[in-house]
Amino acid sequence: MWDEARLRFGGDWNPEQWPERVWAEDVALMRRARVDLVTVGVFAWSRLEPAPGRYDFGWLDRVLDLLADNGIGAALATPTASPPPWFSLAHPGALPVTADGVRLHHGSRDTYCAAAPAYRAAARRIAGVLAERYAHHPALALWHVHNEYGTVCHCEHAAAAFRAWLVGRHGDLAALNDAWTTSFWSQHYSDWAQISTPRATQYLANPGQLLDFRRFWSDTLLAAYTEQRDLLRAANPAVPVTTNYVLGDWVPVDHARWAAEVDLVAVDHYPSAVDGGAEEQTALAADLARGWARHGARARAAGDGRRPVPGDAAGGGAWLLMESAPNLIYTAGRMHTKEPGRMARHSLAHVARGSRGAMYFQWRAPVGGAERFHSALVPHAGPDSRVFRETVELGAILDRIAETDGAAVEASVALGWDAGCGWALQHPGLPSQLVDHHEEVAAAHRALWRAGFGCDVVLPGDPVDGYALLVLPALYLASDAAARWARDYVEGGGHLVVTWLSGVADEHARVRTGGYPGAFRDVLGVRVEEFHPLADGDEVALAGGGVGRIWSEGVGLAGAEVVRAYAAGVLAGQPAVTRHRHGAGTAWYISTRPDDETYRRLLTDAALAAGATPTCPAAPAGVEAVRRRGAAASWLFLLNHTDRAHRVPAAGVELLTGVAVDTAVEVPAGGVAVVREAPAAG
Amino acid sequence: MWDEARLRFGGDWNPEQWPERVWAEDVALMRRARVDLVTVGVFAWSRLEPAPGRYDFGWLDRVLDLLADNGIGAALATPTASPPPWFSLAHPGALPVTADGVRLHHGSRDTYCAAAPAYRAAARRIAGVLAERYAHHPALALWHVHNEYGTVCHCEHAAAAFRAWLVGRHGDLAALNDAWTTSFWSQHYSDWAQISTPRATQYLANPGQLLDFRRFWSDTLLAAYTEQRDLLRAANPAVPVTTNYVLGDWVPVDHARWAAEVDLVAVDHYPSAVDGGAEEQTALAADLARGWARHGARARAAGDGRRPVPGDAAGGGAWLLMESAPNLIYTAGRMHTKEPGRMARHSLAHVARGSRGAMYFQWRAPVGGAERFHSALVPHAGPDSRVFRETVELGAILDRIAETDGAAVEASVALGWDAGCGWALQHPGLPSQLVDHHEEVAAAHRALWRAGFGCDVVLPGDPVDGYALLVLPALYLASDAAARWARDYVEGGGHLVVTWLSGVADEHARVRTGGYPGAFRDVLGVRVEEFHPLADGDEVALAGGGVGRIWSEGVGLAGAEVVRAYAAGVLAGQPAVTRHRHGAGTAWYISTRPDDETYRRLLTDAALAAGATPTCPAAPAGVEAVRRRGAAASWLFLLNHTDRAHRVPAAGVELLTGVAVDTAVEVPAGGVAVVREAPAAG
Amino acid sequence: MWDEARLRFGGDWNPEQWPERVWAEDVALMRRARVDLVTVGVFAWSRLEPAPGRYDFGWLDRVLDLLADNGIGAALATPTASPPPWFSLAHPGALPVTADGVRLHHGSRDTYCAAAPAYRAAARRIAGVLAERYAHHPALALWHVHNEYGTVCHCEHAAAAFRAWLVGRHGDLAALNDAWTTSFWSQHYSDWAQISTPRATQYLANPGQLLDFRRFWSDTLLAAYTEQRDLLRAANPAVPVTTNYVLGDWVPVDHARWAAEVDLVAVDHYPSAVDGGAEEQTALAADLARGWARHGARARAAGDGRRPVPGDAAGGGAWLLMESAPNLIYTAGRMHTKEPGRMARHSLAHVARGSRGAMYFQWRAPVGGAERFHSALVPHAGPDSRVFRETVELGAILDRIAETDGAAVEASVALGWDAGCGWALQHPGLPSQLVDHHEEVAAAHRALWRAGFGCDVVLPGDPVDGYALLVLPALYLASDAAARWARDYVEGGGHLVVTWLSGVADEHARVRTGGYPGAFRDVLGVRVEEFHPLADGDEVALAGGGVGRIWSEGVGLAGAEVVRAYAAGVLAGQPAVTRHRHGAGTAWYISTRPDDETYRRLLTDAALAAGATPTCPAAPAGVEAVRRRGAAASWLFLLNHTDRAHRVPAAGVELLTGVAVDTAVEVPAGGVAVVREAPAAG
Repeated sequence: MWDEARLRFGGDWNPEQWPERVWAEDVALMRRARVDLVTVGVFAWSRLEPAPGRYDFGWLDRVLDLLADNGIGAALATPTASPPPWFSLAHPGALPVTADGVRLHHGSRDTYCAAAPAYRAAARRIAGVLAERYAHHPALALWHVHNEYGTVCHCEHAAAAFRAWLVGRHGDLAALNDAWTTSFWSQHYSDWAQISTPRATQYLANPGQLLDFRRFWSDTLLAAYTEQRDLLRAANPAVPVTTNYVLGDWVPVDHARWAAEVDLVAVDHYPSAVDGGAEEQTALAADLARGWARHGARARAAGDGRRPVPGDAAGGGAWLLMESAPNLIYTAGRMHTKEPGRMARHSLAHVARGSRGAMYFQWRAPVGGAERFHSALVPHAGPDSRVFRETVELGAILDRIAETDGAAVEASVALGWDAGCGWALQHPGLPSQLVDHHEEVAAAHRALWRAGFGCDVVLPGDPVDGYALLVLPALYLASDAAARWARDYVEGGGHLVVTWLSGVADEHARVRTGGYPGAFRDVLGVRVEEFHPLADGDEVALAGGGVGRIWSEGVGLAGAEVVRAYAAGVLAGQPAVTRHRHGAGTAWYISTRPDDETYRRLLTDAALAAGATPTCPAAPAGVEAVRRRGAAASWLFLLNHTDRAHRVPAAGVELLTGVAVDTAVEVPAGGVAVVREAPAAG
Repeated sequence: MWDEARLRFGGDWNPEQWPERVWAEDVALMRRARVDLVTVGVFAWSRLEPAPGRYDFGWLDRVLDLLADNGIGAALATPTASPPPWFSLAHPGALPVTADGVRLHHGSRDTYCAAAPAYRAAARRIAGVLAERYAHHPALALWHVHNEYGTVCHCEHAAAAFRAWLVGRHGDLAALNDAWTTSFWSQHYSDWAQISTPRATQYLANPGQLLDFRRFWSDTLLAAYTEQRDLLRAANPAVPVTTNYVLGDWVPVDHARWAAEVDLVAVDHYPSAVDGGAEEQTALAADLARGWARHGARARAAGDGRRPVPGDAAGGGAWLLMESAPNLIYTAGRMHTKEPGRMARHSLAHVARGSRGAMYFQWRAPVGGAERFHSALVPHAGPDSRVFRETVELGAILDRIAETDGAAVEASVALGWDAGCGWALQHPGLPSQLVDHHEEVAAAHRALWRAGFGCDVVLPGDPVDGYALLVLPALYLASDAAARWARDYVEGGGHLVVTWLSGVADEHARVRTGGYPGAFRDVLGVRVEEFHPLADGDEVALAGGGVGRIWSEGVGLAGAEVVRAYAAGVLAGQPAVTRHRHGAGTAWYISTRPDDETYRRLLTDAALAAGATPTCPAAPAGVEAVRRRGAAASWLFLLNHTDRAHRVPAAGVELLTGVAVDTAVEVPAGGVAVVREAPAAG
Repeated sequence: MWDEARLRFGGDWNPEQWPERVWAEDVALMRRARVDLVTVGVFAWSRLEPAPGRYDFGWLDRVLDLLADNGIGAALATPTASPPPWFSLAHPGALPVTADGVRLHHGSRDTYCAAAPAYRAAARRIAGVLAERYAHHPALALWHVHNEYGTVCHCEHAAAAFRAWLVGRHGDLAALNDAWTTSFWSQHYSDWAQISTPRATQYLANPGQLLDFRRFWSDTLLAAYTEQRDLLRAANPAVPVTTNYVLGDWVPVDHARWAAEVDLVAVDHYPSAVDGGAEEQTALAADLARGWARHGARARAAGDGRRPVPGDAAGGGAWLLMESAPNLIYTAGRMHTKEPGRMARHSLAHVARGSRGAMYFQWRAPVGGAERFHSALVPHAGPDSRVFRETVELGAILDRIAETDGAAVEASVALGWDAGCGWALQHPGLPSQLVDHHEEVAAAHRALWRAGFGCDVVLPGDPVDGYALLVLPALYLASDAAARWARDYVEGGGHLVVTWLSGVADEHARVRTGGYPGAFRDVLGVRVEEFHPLADGDEVALAGGGVGRIWSEGVGLAGAEVVRAYAAGVLAGQPAVTRHRHGAGTAWYISTRPDDETYRRLLTDAALAAGATPTCPAAPAGVEAVRRRGAAASWLFLLNHTDRAHRVPAAGVELLTGVAVDTAVEVPAGGVAVVREAPAAG
């Protein structure tokens, strides 16, 4: 059902949106494009169950048979992301409620509360019926549960579930009152019943409550997922099960933690930048997905050991790009049409970083519905179009590089990330509204990407011994264990870079006293008394060139030496970047957000000092290099994001052209080369 | 009651806001200013019916008698736009509800749901009582139903009415599901009861639902109007009935369709630009009003044939400026005081384009209430004021040009407009948030205005044989009939200009497949695969000079020739403007929004090629020229929007001064001339 | 309990946020810093009364005993600003409701409706129990009722209370209908029951209703305060009672009127500007506080004559800075760390202008809660920190200048301010959204501050005979009495400056007809027909240099002479600033908002012409000078806001250094000098 060494290609196919006569054309076009996996049924609940308990599977039977007949696999979805209108009418109490108490209506998608028993029961029922009917269908390649879990709710069901979850987390009210510091503003709870979700209130909300609500909701959505997964698994344990992650700061899901519960991490990725930023966002999304997958695989290995998607030679880092936009980039306020070749380059960037294929939303552009102008492989113009022609070409390319499937991605740097930090930094009352964990991770990743270092995303506690460098950007929350983890790494000889706002708070978002950066003060050899956040748009000059933005700090030395000082402003002459020999290792502290070029230089210095080397040191700026390593070979992916061709040193065989490469390969403007490297380079 | 060849002058008079001793001064001042029509009673419900079923008409009797005694006509309003507080308390379920479910309270105006039976009954009752009492009062010139219909509601009454309307429109649920493409996101309706108004929902709403809700609400408000109208007509068929339109993108009223139900199109116009843009907005508003009136007259001619307002020589294009601001322009955030003379110029611009008079809100500035600083003919300073002096002067001018009343407005260009397009382009999920039908109509109108071509607004399907040129800006929705209408026009020899986003969708806002611009692809000889919307503020250079904004497209030629190419960006070298010989005619396509000057040139080229001529080719920039044609004469209105005097070629008699014009007339800076043209010019 | 001639120093101490072992360190640190007054218990309700009627006073007993043992006074708070969660559950109807009808939940602070009987009863109960237990505790220096009264509510309790208040204010419905001009938009009320709070409505609300709602709510909050105060006073009449004012345009409290009900005006001040603007905001806040205190003292003298806080030699102008931020300035979006020395300078600026001490929020930074990053005297870093070291230094300084406590502040100019004007100018429908009474008062104050004139804030009706100049900025509402008050002042020889928008409306916000500025037309000798508000960011040149912003007017002369004309725009050549000899005095009118420098010059001209002299004419720009006068001495405070030292002419003894001053004192960069002046200077 899921073979090794083949890259999947396809997308969401919604035959229910079209008359049956269109289906045959669809499948013929899929074959022309070498499509071998399509997601089916994501939003089909109202067609599969037009009335409570009354099912109409005939059309889906025909769809799946048609796929099987044509050798195309199905990622069969449970349709629970969009209950039918009849459900809302039968169960108005299962409609979601905003923090203001507004009960939302159906008429879009995702109009349910994941904590509402009626919703959960209906979702289990339709999932169970699908499992029973299709678990052994020859087209079935993968179960695709739900779609982009991510909506929240503040109804009474949610509040009751929150209370139950809090009992589980804190045990008794005294512990909760302590964790949430309810002594501030007279919020002491004397009965569990007094606790609600963080509904609209008069002024600033409690940070502990906000953080726990986010964690609770991630667990609630996860429970909604796992109960469907268990039904599907029970019907046929051989078929892997997953759900597609939606990315975004607003998403109340701890993707890394969820990774232990999916058989294949699946990610939907839509960059928002239209220029080179889109490439950087793509690389980060792929590295995050792979990092989550590795984190999950370890957790799973410690659990049931189940790993049903074969062919993962990447240490559990296999994942799948489940959705992306063929020819559009969605920016604020408008859609940007990708330049010719960019669709393939974006897709191959994901494949280079471990995606086991390239999937799109959606196959054929619909004529109506809210997303009628969303990108598609078969656009409104039809198959006689640039987009579909590029689709056919990309299908052929994926075939030619199929051997890379499952190979490990080379990385010498580990980059810390934590969902909880992201949530905690969205709370009110922080010293600056510009602080954002995801943005800081992205900035560090961008610096590493520009410096050309391969990078794995890790969570605090993940094994990091194999990496030359560990970078922890704005790791605001740090438990004692996380502090110990970083300290052990350095004392064992590791090189660590920590940036501002890290370690300030514990896992309950309570500030650590005695001086910032709390949890990491000793390993960094610094002590900060006061923050100096910068105004939006302001910058502070750094000695040696470059500027800092967003934030600055009065860094007191407590063992560390100065690498860079502030060169202007109230902190002029005081340390901006420091380095501390600690144990057998070195720990750097960066107390501001450097501009991209300065950040690139700082991390390059730290990485080289740590013994890391770039993936392809001779690659020119704008040419992204990623190396994959399999059991018997290595492959160098070269993605040319510039508008002119570049020659890059390499030796082996370029797979797209089949041409042997002696000393260098020419990568076309905006194009991609994949070189199976000669053993010497391996 | 409504004689020919006299231009009405007046405004909203609210004697109920003042002690009775002020009334005599008011009427004396009206006579001094030659005011002959005042709107009375618009917001007087709580004074006319201070408690349910208890009426107090004494004061209104005295007001109307006073008017009659002074020869001033009354546009007597039904007061239904603002139910009294007692009504809200008696019928809380008739208060309006927002999409979020917030029930609004009284304390402003318009706090009712037009679909609530209790409101409708109360409105009919007060209208009926007024009809019975005043239908034959000698002061009564016109019934003025309600005020500025425009508020919406999402309560249960509205939802029930929406469902009933949908049954009428779609017949069965299958048709509705198809029209709304409910197969997208599992929105299939299996029972009418499942449909509500587009209440707040989780994410993007369904475009079909949004569009039908707008149409439904226009019809709902129209029904609220017509049932009052019928009561008033029944009481005295000789008195014309109307309601004043409020303009604005947010207004859920299809003014053109309503025009068939009013005896005189009446428009409230408040420009928002403070510079020359105010003049352009004024010209457009007037042309829209005249276009709606013509459209309505044709529909009515096909119906009961009733046309009770005599003196319309303009082919049904008679209309009335019912409200405008004497000396203020309302901009975002502040009020702009009009420069001396501008009040007259704005008013005469409306008269030039067919208004049968000049009416204002309001007569005397109130001391309290939300609009206490709204403009007035008698300002807070009293009659010893610039504003009132200019009022008196304007009254005299209107008398001097009374002979122009009812004459046809000369136009060689037809400009398409459609309420539904405007609504459809306000939906989420479009390729750009900058697209706006009304803005595109305004941009095309501005280009024609600057080029000096007279212009009639038409709806798809309206007769266009007499026009040299037909311009269809961003006609996003196009039924098959509309496509045929445009094609027939061109095939018959017409010259057509279509701009981007036109014809993309059908009347249900479903995208037409096979390539854009869907409905007009054949007549234009182009095929577009992909849109390239521009970022806000961005522009793309055009070959030959000028730039495009908001939007661009990859235009494939399918018979058309290139008029202008893109000169920069990803589309450099590709067609931006094309021309296609089709049948006996020519069809142009403009795939971006040109800057004003480029747009002016393009439409000038197209119009001249089509055989159109400007109204007054020698008029200098900034001097607006409009020609009226009556049975025996023609009149040239010249509006000098510049700050210096201009001499303009003309021959005849200038009516404001009574001076004979031989070869040219001097139009004072900021002033107006009206020349009754010598027969040679006719 | 409250001795003379000692400046209080301290802040909010929240021992309930810390384990008891921290308390001893806290008190030791307080002694080190010479702290002698701490606010205790502000948000301790849920700790004092963990369940309805069950009290836990043990910890507070120990806290107060500890303070008494260490000679530190307690400002003991009633904790009613934050009801415990159990209260919300027991009385959901006492939770506040927004204008949209959203009922807010607990989870922050201030989640109560001050008009809800259940809340008021619970608040009285806890205040009564505290009074009974602690009224004679030796630590008790001051009762601190509640905290920052300021939240509003639209629930049914609030509506009922509003109706009752309106009956009291207007007597009968006819008067209310007249005051609110309900004849506009059919808002005539025929029954009191029809009136609600200004809930969300369809469009613009009624200005009279909005204004009365603000006044009503100020009275409602005041009643909530006074009933607590009465309980506390009854328990021990010797202990003064106050509540801390929160400043801000949004605050629905008439602070001046409240001043008659507190025994000591207490103000929380947090400037929002990070540059020099913070110093100007500080000076204004202090002058407002002193003005309120003087106004209140007069009202109280006419009442029960009670004045329990001894040592006020300032004519009732004694007040206390109850909260300020030690080392942070809170700006939009981030926190700004004060430069070294600025904490002392800000605090001494308040003391210079009459504060009887310097108090802070809060003593020790908490580890959790919404305000965990709020400023503190003992920051997260602990006492080994710049902030705490500056705290210790400041404590010593306050001791050295203790003799200034209670001395009068010298002022030759009176500056008008009125809460109602501020509220009325926040209504919709004004000619410009940029008009703001508080901003105009601030602009005038800033001009006087820069010009170096001491200034007292007065309300219309306050005695002004002793001032050389009276400035009334944007006094939009003016009753007949206020008009008479200003006229009498001028006729008696006073010099008056009135700025635009003044006198336009009466006390019900009804516009005065006949020409602006209504109430002040005669005394100013001008008549304005039309306003010309400027767009945001625009400016108009003035003859003689400088520009006007926000507003301009066509000023007609009716006796006045032109001081400055507009030099550009539609008003070029017309009067911008005028002067009118009236009676024995002079009245200036400024019809625009001058830029700061022009405003400084205009007010300098007016003040000098009036015979006023600056506090310290030789003080360089950036050095603020304030003179205090006691029974036997005078003191010159010199606050150097620049970054270099300045020598300022003075003679006497500098108290911080104890050094004798012959002719001039050196004020360090960013520092402060306080000179006890030699008698000659007195």
